[in-house]
This record gives sequence, structure tokens and C-alpha cells, in this order.
Amino acid sequence: MTQIFNFSAGPAVLPKEVLLQAASEMLDWHGSGMSVMEMSHRGPEFSSIHRQALDDLRELLDVPANYKILFQQGGGLGQNAIVPLNLARRRNDPVIDFVHTGSWSGKSIKEAARYARVNVAASSEAEGFSRVPPRESWNLSQDAAYLHICTNETIDGVEYPDAPRMDPMSDPDVPIVADMSSHILSRKIDILKYGVIFAGAQKNIGPAGLTLVIVREDLLDYASPQCPSAFNWKTCAEHDSLYNTPPTYAIYIAGLVFAWLKANGGVAAMEARNIEKAKLLYEALDRDDFYANRVAPEFRSRMNVPFYLRDESLNQLFLTGASGRGLLQLKGHKSVGGMRASIYNAMPIEGVQALVDYLNEFAGR
Amino acid sequence: MTQIFNFSAGPAVLPKEVLLQAASEMLDWHGSGMSVMEMSHRGPEFSSIHRQALDDLRELLDVPANYKILFQQGGGLGQNAIVPLNLARRRNDPVIDFVHTGSWSGKSIKEAARYARVNVAASSEAEGFSRVPPRESWNLSQDAAYLHICTNETIDGVEYPDAPRMDPMSDPDVPIVADMSSHILSRKIDILKYGVIFAGAQKNIGPAGLTLVIVREDLLDYASPQCPSAFNWKTCAEHDSLYNTPPTYAIYIAGLVFAWLKANGGVAAMEARNIEKAKLLYEALDRDDFYANRVAPEFRSRMNVPFYLRDESLNQLFLTGASGRGLLQLKGHKSVGGMRASIYNAMPIEGVQALVDYLNEFAGR
Repeated sequence: MTQIFNFSAGPAVLPKEVLLQAASEMLDWHGSGMSVMEMSHRGPEFSSIHRQALDDLRELLDVPANYKILFQQGGGLGQNAIVPLNLARRRNDPVIDFVHTGSWSGKSIKEAARYARVNVAASSEAEGFSRVPPRESWNLSQDAAYLHICTNETIDGVEYPDAPRMDPMSDPDVPIVADMSSHILSRKIDILKYGVIFAGAQKNIGPAGLTLVIVREDLLDYASPQCPSAFNWKTCAEHDSLYNTPPTYAIYIAGLVFAWLKANGGVAAMEARNIEKAKLLYEALDRDDFYANRVAPEFRSRMNVPFYLRDESLNQLFLTGASGRGLLQLKGHKSVGGMRASIYNAMPIEGVQALVDYLNEFAGR
Repeated sequence: MTQIFNFSAGPAVLPKEVLLQAASEMLDWHGSGMSVMEMSHRGPEFSSIHRQALDDLRELLDVPANYKILFQQGGGLGQNAIVPLNLARRRNDPVIDFVHTGSWSGKSIKEAARYARVNVAASSEAEGFSRVPPRESWNLSQDAAYLHICTNETIDGVEYPDAPRMDPMSDPDVPIVADMSSHILSRKIDILKYGVIFAGAQKNIGPAGLTLVIVREDLLDYASPQCPSAFNWKTCAEHDSLYNTPPTYAIYIAGLVFAWLKANGGVAAMEARNIEKAKLLYEALDRDDFYANRVAPEFRSRMNVPFYLRDESLNQLFLTGASGRGLLQLKGHKSVGGMRASIYNAMPIEGVQALVDYLNEFAGR
């Protein structure tokens, strides 16, 4: 059988070791006689799984003690509403600042407008979302409830190289809310620079249906009465993510992924490998003008690499040839067309090399 | 190894055949080279899984064509808010009618009060939630946005024997919303008697993290602007439950459960078996006064059987002995104490028999 490499943007490839362990434990977790799917979320078996996943994630991301780690449901799109429902009330007549860098920040802006005034402090739309707008161009509000950014645009392939610098004089108390769905755990981050971080699991964490929220404790007190209890961060934090039944099996798989990350050197080792993988792929795309990636080099995502064939009439031929070699799910998002290779933590360098070999061979033909 | 029987109220026992198939397909679904967890929710492989699950469920429950089947997230507790966010606006200055029959309808009342006036049309609280209040005692509003009932109270063990009779003269246009989380697929239901049916998956459907919503099409048009897009029924219906990334693996497991139900005679066969299982267990509890179930016989749940030992100082001894025999998760919900045996579709009659044998033996000692 051909070796498969799965470049899906999400749900996405998982470490093979994780899937092997999940398969072997499916009918009987650690001698309990039960599948993890069959366990009460309040029983000692699942509690130990849950606790270990939280501890490992806190260690991997170096999450400070004054931040809560929550497991919720509804994905990034859910949080686009859940964030303003929990946080807009920090201010009377609130305004929320946004930086518009692509499809996902665009969706966030649209959704937040249901709950508060929104101010698009900066946008790279006119430049085809090829960069993060320069920090000095951002027109932040005087007293925003928070600033929302998407630090890696999954569809547009734009990544923030760093947390944005906030000015302690003019923005003394504006927490940054970051949608890190598609690059969390792929690089070191300084949690202290953010008030809230959220991420759908289905890229670098585990199965779809689990949403990670990391929130600074002082930001737990602002939920609107309109916020559903099941999505109220404070309620969730006070009940250790067990106020409603959590997606237990997804948490278990995420825990296996966290253990795999720890066994493979943690986030620092992943970051080094991700830099190497991205370099290999972008160099192949830049080699001649047969392929094009339109993002400015300093903002190119290490996780999601959209690219176009110069001659788009060859798209189908390219995809068919790729599938024949076991290079799967390379078609770009329907809103932007072209191709996209998502090269998350679980994508081995061999997969990127196989794609690069194919890119070279296809361009040569 | 002792045969295990898992009486958890949810997440709960799944058919062994389902778990075996899931384990065998974990690394490679049908020669795709991918785990179901790794598949794009928009790709042809997952689309076929999704479609089959919907078709099988529609057949199993005999869902009429003018009802949409949605897969959402957030569980029953999530729907307690999502329902009023989608439906209260059927009326100006809306009032929502409730029948209070136990813990779950109680939670629904509390949550709905965030979004509309609530009218508790009837309550059996004064009788210790031992029955469904007689229909003729319900004080329904003149023009409620809807009537919300919980047709099987998981904690209190109270089940509606039938859909409530609505009077076409006085209640001409009040849709019934039914929380069927803990007994859906366990008995025949007439979908036409309901406007909306919802159910968390983790009892009779599949893994926690998936929520089933069945909604009549004419009820899709009333979402509040405050309703998060990810939980807007109409948006969800228009995008075939793919507006946000659905919990793909949970849908896959649910699909395997649906296939198992079909292969085992469907809902009618399950109902016959569930009647037999419940009869066996309640007869054992009623045999002498060593055990007590406090629910009036005609409202006793076929799925969740709470019971008490006359001498509660024996509770721990009872539970330890049960565990030793492989009879797991029999402890009652913390809010009501005592014991609870949940005997969902996937609980074989052998499991109930083993419990009955133990009940008799323990009482005899």
C-alpha cells in the first residue's frame, strides 16, 4: 500500500502512535473493562485522563497559574460568539477592536457585531490578505473591551510572527484575544501577552468537537446574562469543564497527543521541525514561477501553505497526480481556490519532502 | 476476566460490535489510508459517513420529510439555551411553558428564564418528582412560544408514557419541544406530535460531544440576533450541519450505532427488549421492601432506574460488592443519592439479569 500523507487543513492528520494507542485501548482502557467513550465523565477513570491532559497541556504551553484551561464545544466559530458573550461587558457600550487579516478574522468581526460595536483597527484586505498590517498603522479604540486577532489564518496562510506589541501608555488594559486554532502548540508563545487564547482542536490538538480556551482569571467576571450557561467561561472554570458533559473521547485523544508532544521534545522541538518543514516547502514553491504563494515572506504561515499553479487549467491534473502518490487533501479552500498544504505538528518531514518531490516533478513535466 | 456490565447514566455503554469496528478502522477507514478523525468534514469520505448516518436515523425514527435532522454541539445543557435563542421569538413578549418533572426540566426552566418569561404549567416537585402531573392539571399559557418537556428524566427516573395530548382548540399552535436525551431510540415515538426534539448523544446514540436536534421546518425562522451562528438551527440546516466543523468522529460512531440498531431489528425490537429488561429489574426491586423505587409505576423510566436501599448504611457495601461482580457505575446521582441503574439499548438482558441476581443475593444476606 502507498504511504499516505494527509495535508487536510482540519480535521487533520494525527500522530500514528496516538491512533495505534487509541485502537488498542478502544474496548478496554487500562483494565477498566470500558472504552473511554463509555465512562462517566465524573468517574475516577475519566477524571485521571482529564487531569493528565490538563497538566500536560499546562506544561507544554507553560501556562501561568493565573490562567484557567477550559475544554468547551462549538469550535472557533462558536467562540466567535462565545468570546463577546463572555467579555464585551468589560465596558459599558462596548467596542471591540479587530485586525482583519483573512477569512477567520473576517468571520469573527461579523459575528461579534451581533453583540457590540466593532472597530476594524487595521485590515490587509486591500492587499489580498498577504500580510499582517504594520502595528503602527492600527487604529485602536480608546477603551476597547478587548482586541481580537487571528494569529494564524488557516485559509489565507498568514501568521503573526509575534504577539502584537501593546503600548502600556495608550492601551493599558486592553486584553488581546487570540484565535490560535491552526497553530497552537506549533511554536513557543508567551501566554502572558494574551488575555484569552482559543483553539478548535481539529488541527494541532485532536478530534473536531473539542475547543480549548485559555483565559486569564480576571477576565472571567463579565459574562452577559444572554450567555448560555454551557458556554459561560466562569461556570465552566468553576466546574472544571464538567458543568455540561464534555466531549470525553476527544479530550482523551487530545491527551494522547499531548503525551506524544512531550515524548517528542515538546513545543520547542516541534517549532524547530516546523521551521524546517516550512522552509523546505516554501523554497520549492519559490524556485521558479510555476507555483506562487502570495503571502509576504515574513508573514507566511508555518502551518497552512496556500499556493497556486501559474496555469490554473492544470489544477485537476495536479490533484489527481498527487492523490496517485498518496498526497491527499491538497485542494485549496473553496473561497480562495488553488491548493493548500497544511503541515501541522503530526505531518512528518517525509511528507513535506514527498510533496516537494512531486512539486518539482510536476513543474518539470 | 470478569464480564463487565456498565450501568453509567452517560456517557454510557456502547454496543461491543460498534467498538470492535471502530478499533479495526481506527488507522484506515475503508482503504482511505486515513482515520475518520483525520478526514476533512467536506471530503467525500466523511460526506458518505455523514449521509449514511442521517439516512439511517431518519429511517429508524421515521422522521417525516418536513423535519430537519441537525448535528450540533453542547449537549442538552447547551440546548436549554439554544432552544429559546432559536424559538422564543415566535411570539412578541414571549412566554415559554414548562412541565417540571425533575432535575433536567428544572435546569431547562432556569436557563430559559434568561431569554423569556417562563410559566411552570405543572410540577410534580411536591410529590418528589414521582410522576408526570396529570395532563388536565397543566395550566398552559394562552399563547406560549412553545411548551418544553423532558420526556425522560435521567436523574429522577420518570418517563412520559406518551406524547402529551394538546387540545387543538385551546393550544392550536404551540409546538412541543422535547428533551429526549436519555430515551431517544429506545421506543417508538410519533415525531409529528413534536415541534423540536433534542438529545445529547451520550446515552443511546454515541459519544459525548454530539447533540441531535430534529426540528420542524416552519420553526427554523425565529432565531434571535443574539443566537450564536454556530448554534442557529436555520444556519445549521442550510449548511447540512457543516457551518462549523461538526464533531466528525462522534458522528461516525453514532452512525455505527444506527447501523447496529438496524441490524438488530430497529426501534421496535429495542422497545420490546427494553420493556422486558425494565420489567425484570423493577420486579426485583418491588419483590420486598429491602429496595425502593419511588416513581409511580406508570411513569417509571425504562432507561434510568433509581433505587434506594431501605438501610442506606449498606450503600457502600452494596456498591463494592457490585463492582466485584463487574456491575459498574451504579451509584446514584449526587443530587438524589441512592443507586441508579441505566439500562440503555446497548445494555444486554444478561446485564440486567446479573444485576437482578445480585440484588436478590444482597437482600438475602
